[in-house]
Amino acid sequence: MRHLLTINEFSDKEILDILDLASKIKKNPGKYKDKLKGKTLLMIFAKPSLRTNLSFNVGIFQLGGEAIFYNLDQSTLGAKESIKDFSKVDSRYVDIVMARLFEHKDIEELAKYSDVPVINGLTNDHHPCQALGDILTIKERFKNFRNVKITYIGDANNNVTNSLIIICNKLGMEITICSPNKKEFLPNKQVIGDLKYNYESDPKKAVQNCNVIYCDTWMSYNIPKSQHSKRAKILKNYQVNEALLNITKNALFMHCLPAKRGEEVTDAVMDSERSIVYDQAENRLFVQKAVMLKLLGK
Amino acid sequence: MRHLLTINEFSDKEILDILDLASKIKKNPGKYKDKLKGKTLLMIFAKPSLRTNLSFNVGIFQLGGEAIFYNLDQSTLGAKESIKDFSKVDSRYVDIVMARLFEHKDIEELAKYSDVPVINGLTNDHHPCQALGDILTIKERFKNFRNVKITYIGDANNNVTNSLIIICNKLGMEITICSPNKKEFLPNKQVIGDLKYNYESDPKKAVQNCNVIYCDTWMSYNIPKSQHSKRAKILKNYQVNEALLNITKNALFMHCLPAKRGEEVTDAVMDSERSIVYDQAENRLFVQKAVMLKLLGK
Amino acid sequence: MRHLLTINEFSDKEILDILDLASKIKKNPGKYKDKLKGKTLLMIFAKPSLRTNLSFNVGIFQLGGEAIFYNLDQSTLGAKESIKDFSKVDSRYVDIVMARLFEHKDIEELAKYSDVPVINGLTNDHHPCQALGDILTIKERFKNFRNVKITYIGDANNNVTNSLIIICNKLGMEITICSPNKKEFLPNKQVIGDLKYNYESDPKKAVQNCNVIYCDTWMSYNIPKSQHSKRAKILKNYQVNEALLNITKNALFMHCLPAKRGEEVTDAVMDSERSIVYDQAENRLFVQKAVMLKLLGK
Repeated sequence: MRHLLTINEFSDKEILDILDLASKIKKNPGKYKDKLKGKTLLMIFAKPSLRTNLSFNVGIFQLGGEAIFYNLDQSTLGAKESIKDFSKVDSRYVDIVMARLFEHKDIEELAKYSDVPVINGLTNDHHPCQALGDILTIKERFKNFRNVKITYIGDANNNVTNSLIIICNKLGMEITICSPNKKEFLPNKQVIGDLKYNYESDPKKAVQNCNVIYCDTWMSYNIPKSQHSKRAKILKNYQVNEALLNITKNALFMHCLPAKRGEEVTDAVMDSERSIVYDQAENRLFVQKAVMLKLLGK
Repeated sequence: MRHLLTINEFSDKEILDILDLASKIKKNPGKYKDKLKGKTLLMIFAKPSLRTNLSFNVGIFQLGGEAIFYNLDQSTLGAKESIKDFSKVDSRYVDIVMARLFEHKDIEELAKYSDVPVINGLTNDHHPCQALGDILTIKERFKNFRNVKITYIGDANNNVTNSLIIICNKLGMEITICSPNKKEFLPNKQVIGDLKYNYESDPKKAVQNCNVIYCDTWMSYNIPKSQHSKRAKILKNYQVNEALLNITKNALFMHCLPAKRGEEVTDAVMDSERSIVYDQAENRLFVQKAVMLKLLGK
Repeated sequence: MRHLLTINEFSDKEILDILDLASKIKKNPGKYKDKLKGKTLLMIFAKPSLRTNLSFNVGIFQLGGEAIFYNLDQSTLGAKESIKDFSKVDSRYVDIVMARLFEHKDIEELAKYSDVPVINGLTNDHHPCQALGDILTIKERFKNFRNVKITYIGDANNNVTNSLIIICNKLGMEITICSPNKKEFLPNKQVIGDLKYNYESDPKKAVQNCNVIYCDTWMSYNIPKSQHSKRAKILKNYQVNEALLNITKNALFMHCLPAKRGEEVTDAVMDSERSIVYDQAENRLFVQKAVMLKLLGK
């Protein structure tokens, strides 16, 4: 039984296969419309979601199946019922499971006991579907996409950055992290271990030769409101604005969204011609379809 | 890109076309079962709904598509994410959007940035789908429906009344508003502008020659609980009860529902043979189908 | 119009017909894939659910139809809108209704006014779908299933026990209740009336000759947290553990789930080879399909 809990579990070749399949589905969606005919996807959500929710829901439907939205706010995962029992039971009803949970160990346990494939739709530590969508987006824009230089800027201590670093290492791509040089803003060593990335604390130097500037919100779900203004102050020099974008020759701008316009990125950058954030969001759809087909052996 | 945000945006002829299509769908639903094959409808809800939720959900399914229920309670619209980004992103996944929001300006902004049609499923100011369903119901009952005289009675400062007045003006139908003569109970000038309606403060006079008595709850979502008893006292003479219904020769009773039985309307009226409230609710289904087909150019 | 509110409404023969149909569907699901083509099931939930939610959702989908999840947390049933109006209206949109409510009288009222079949997905008093799934599971394991002796142990004052006692009486099966001899833990007389069951307060004696040991949580939804530790103390001798299981020759273990492992049942029992709790959960799927087909006359 294959799962997609982190990018680590897939080889370089498997990742490229998924991306190729995603591109094929994007070009010719009709060809795949019955590939998962009659199949059901359980979508477990412990936190809100727009992109993951819609892309999986529309994705399975366009493959002939059906998504079931299961809001953990009103459920028993771990609390009223062990994750083992939950997983053993849901495996009896559905064909594939996607879960957005807080603790990564919880999705590991869900997968451990699952008799059907489990996809990580974001945990505190990993966001593999996002990373796949990101690389698909870069692949569409750059011929030799493996030579593309990505600079991730801002708060790098989050799931999106972790998964980006992992996938860049898998594919031999160069990634630079630009954040305050404090543990709380740097990539989580416990998640990424000894994986390679460049570090540069100065935003101007960090973006100088890059092809893609990438950022994410400064205020992830787990950050309490009381720390927002303090964090905004520390991170304000890491904002992606026109001045920063213009330092680069023609770098594209990416963001996993949701964006807090005026905080980690300005309106001018979000709305510029160099921003490919909506293409990036759309590509989640094709990647989710490819991942589901891959895991279900179709 | 056409949207349905208010009845204003549609011509007399377009409204009649939608109503005709709705009637055809009602007579022969099977004929339309694949018209929206593979299409997805995003339903965004900031408030609870029974009729709008079910009629759109069942409606798109019976046309071959699928509805996605998106509860704003656990989302980011406007708060965590700009309406622009939300709309740009959802347009990449789904084929059509329906939203029930509080502020009408929010659905205008959603539509402004949407690359797919947006349908207003109720805002504080407008409820165009309800008005279309209302006229369809009247059209079924009266041969010369444009001559039908409607008396709306009770709290007239709400979305349902606004949309009724607008559609009556579009179609040249006569509507009388009967409410306390205070700004808070009268139709909202900022929404309906100079549109025509008769005003009569005395319920008995107001219903005397009408063909349809229409009412709505006195306690809309935005009314705080603390004002309920005060409002009930002011409005109690505007209750639709048997005495009032019997003043008319054979007026039919309509209500957009939910009804607070014993408040704006009595059990006897709701359950009388003259009450067509369930037909009115059912007609939402055919109108929603017609609106989706129209906006998607099918 | 037939409904499934309690097992009482069905004859011995009808129950066996449903179980036979469920077995046929389990063996050959593909044969039934278009039986409810285009049909819609409204699922009304006033409380959380995993098994009932998933099994009905997947069930109707695999029969060609669609489920609509309707969370009462954000609705008007009874509160903003009378149950009569709710039921009259939903009957205009959907083909069949399943509801999980607190008060049994509420589902009776829902059914009273419904123009489509209503299925009880659990009330405070009854859980008929669970009982059908339980007997299907027993039928699969025992040739002469009507001779099977069931011992229900623990807190017997709940919907699951009530429905088990009713179905055992219908089918002439023997059931023993083993619980503290206090009204609050005994089957509810107001629900089961004069139906027969054996009572034995001593767990060891109660299980001695049984073929199936059955239990449920000690802390149903309606039990306030403040009483949990007191109840756990009273019920601790009624825990199903290996010592108790080993008293029997080869009794199987059943549980309607969710289980509170370590409370009413130990890990060792839940995970033993004699535990058939996941088969039992899975059988909900086939029973729901059979019930929907039966009520819709397919």
